[in-house]
Amino acid sequence: MAEGRFITFEGGEGAGKSTQVRLLAKALGDLGREVVLTREPGGADGAEAIRALLVNGAVDRWDAHTEALLHSAARRDHLVKTVWPALGRGAWVLCDRFADSTLAYQGYGHGLDHQLIATLAEVAMGAFRPDLTLILDLPVEEGLHRAGGRGGGEDRYERMGVDFHQRLRHGFLTIAANEPQRCAVIDADQPVPTVHENIVSVLSRRLGLPA
Amino acid sequence: MAEGRFITFEGGEGAGKSTQVRLLAKALGDLGREVVLTREPGGADGAEAIRALLVNGAVDRWDAHTEALLHSAARRDHLVKTVWPALGRGAWVLCDRFADSTLAYQGYGHGLDHQLIATLAEVAMGAFRPDLTLILDLPVEEGLHRAGGRGGGEDRYERMGVDFHQRLRHGFLTIAANEPQRCAVIDADQPVPTVHENIVSVLSRRLGLPA
Repeated sequence: MAEGRFITFEGGEGAGKSTQVRLLAKALGDLGREVVLTREPGGADGAEAIRALLVNGAVDRWDAHTEALLHSAARRDHLVKTVWPALGRGAWVLCDRFADSTLAYQGYGHGLDHQLIATLAEVAMGAFRPDLTLILDLPVEEGLHRAGGRGGGEDRYERMGVDFHQRLRHGFLTIAANEPQRCAVIDADQPVPTVHENIVSVLSRRLGLPA
Repeated sequence: MAEGRFITFEGGEGAGKSTQVRLLAKALGDLGREVVLTREPGGADGAEAIRALLVNGAVDRWDAHTEALLHSAARRDHLVKTVWPALGRGAWVLCDRFADSTLAYQGYGHGLDHQLIATLAEVAMGAFRPDLTLILDLPVEEGLHRAGGRGGGEDRYERMGVDFHQRLRHGFLTIAANEPQRCAVIDADQPVPTVHENIVSVLSRRLGLPA
């Protein structure tokens, strides 16, 4: 059986991650491969219940330590119930946000100790890492403008202020710089089809497209 | 202002913790001291929402890692929102279950690595520890018999089998043996008023009663 792949999409609010995950899922599905499209926090029954605690309510509902612990709990449940079984079947798993978001949001954004975040990552996933992480990069103002336009609830993170989102962007770019083998930065300030083409191109070069 | 105290009650199902916490709260209140009666998992709005995820549902709803992360998240929220502010006011805080339950249930009960649990404790509470931990000890069969009789929901842990509860009891007694300065084992297989008298006696010897 062909090997599964785990591909994560990261970046700030409004970068177009959800759209690009769906476009890539369709492209890979058209190649005849089982694709599992998932997201964090969430992606499994228990993890989605934890997600509801994280994305709703007052900005200061949780302190940074509690928030990192909740994200790690949701991540573990997601891996155990959804991601690892899918990879075991040989599926390509596409995930909208993963562990880099915890480091970017709680570490770079809220100033939580990076070693503590690494420790929690070890608890949640051991040595497991994505095969490829696509970091969708966009000027902060443009991202918040786009995110503000989509309406709906789940906007606790969007309401955290421009400075916070600047630290977030810096965080994601630093993560990419520190792990160039695993990460690729994608310029998301382009038309949707162009971003998609660039993602397929990176995927093809780094992992090869599924046969 | 007089110093606050943090006193935790630990032990297996049906050991009479909730009853004894209430009796001690009344006794301390009668001495004119502010008493905060709380419990884990829970004890703060966010932590109670996490509790609902932990105490309901199928026995295998969460794997041991996820469960330990959720308990740690609830603990952090409880400390930040309830326990530390109360101690800051000089209150005596009585807590029905705390960190030793995580080590006993997830460590001794489910076989999760003890170092990993210590790491999570460090994330949730740093170097903070209870001033006194009362471990209510009871033969397993007697505890499950008592717990079974009280009805109501929240019985996910009770349904885990006698072997599990034997490991739990062994865990609590080992914790007490390893930290005799902090912990006191209380024989809970006695009438309620006798157990209460013994608890007051230990408290008086170890911490002094509040003046």
